[in-house]
Amino acid sequence: MKTAYIVFAHGSRIEAANDAVRALAAELAHRGGYELVEVAFLDCAPPDLSTVIGRLAEQGATRIVVIPYFLTLGRHTAEDLPRIAAEASRIHNGIRVDIAPPMDGHAALIGILLDRAREIAD
Amino acid sequence: MKTAYIVFAHGSRIEAANDAVRALAAELAHRGGYELVEVAFLDCAPPDLSTVIGRLAEQGATRIVVIPYFLTLGRHTAEDLPRIAAEASRIHNGIRVDIAPPMDGHAALIGILLDRAREIAD
Repeated sequence: MKTAYIVFAHGSRIEAANDAVRALAAELAHRGGYELVEVAFLDCAPPDLSTVIGRLAEQGATRIVVIPYFLTLGRHTAEDLPRIAAEASRIHNGIRVDIAPPMDGHAALIGILLDRAREIAD
Repeated sequence: MKTAYIVFAHGSRIEAANDAVRALAAELAHRGGYELVEVAFLDCAPPDLSTVIGRLAEQGATRIVVIPYFLTLGRHTAEDLPRIAAEASRIHNGIRVDIAPPMDGHAALIGILLDRAREIAD
């Protein structure tokens, strides 16, 4: 089984925001030692998730792990993402697509908010 | 100067997502030792930012720190938020409203994505 990873973000009309997601994906590949890591966007920027799943399947991936770069379980992650993943799996010969939980609930989030509060507090 | 903090999130139609933001704000108050911490939402759920700024001003806050619970500098944080903050300041006797940076760029984010990738990898 050859696993590929997709950092799946909302996408922004502000290109610097999309670049930040791409930089995170590159860092994920580096730190995780993952060979196949791509970025896909829900909206506002290409490429979309189905396109990227197809590209990774062509590169030999037999399993896709989608990592939502979303804070909360909103309608995008709760409704849109499973639907898109199921469609992509059907199109690409039933390739296995697993979806990681959103970032919400991770213990490190509160540390980020605390840092942001303190940075601007003075 | 009495500073109050507002965790400002997008808001979701999924109430569990909004509850998660409220829990984070409570944790921020506890961990940061902050007396006045509230939550406000851009969309999909009350209360809105202006309402919360007014409520905190009534409680004696003379300065508001808005902490965006947004990952990236999208249009909400780059455009909507400064406009809303400026309007609220004008309405509430020129109360000072400072906006912290979004979470993007914080070193802890990559750790969260790595954890999410590893949790589902096996």
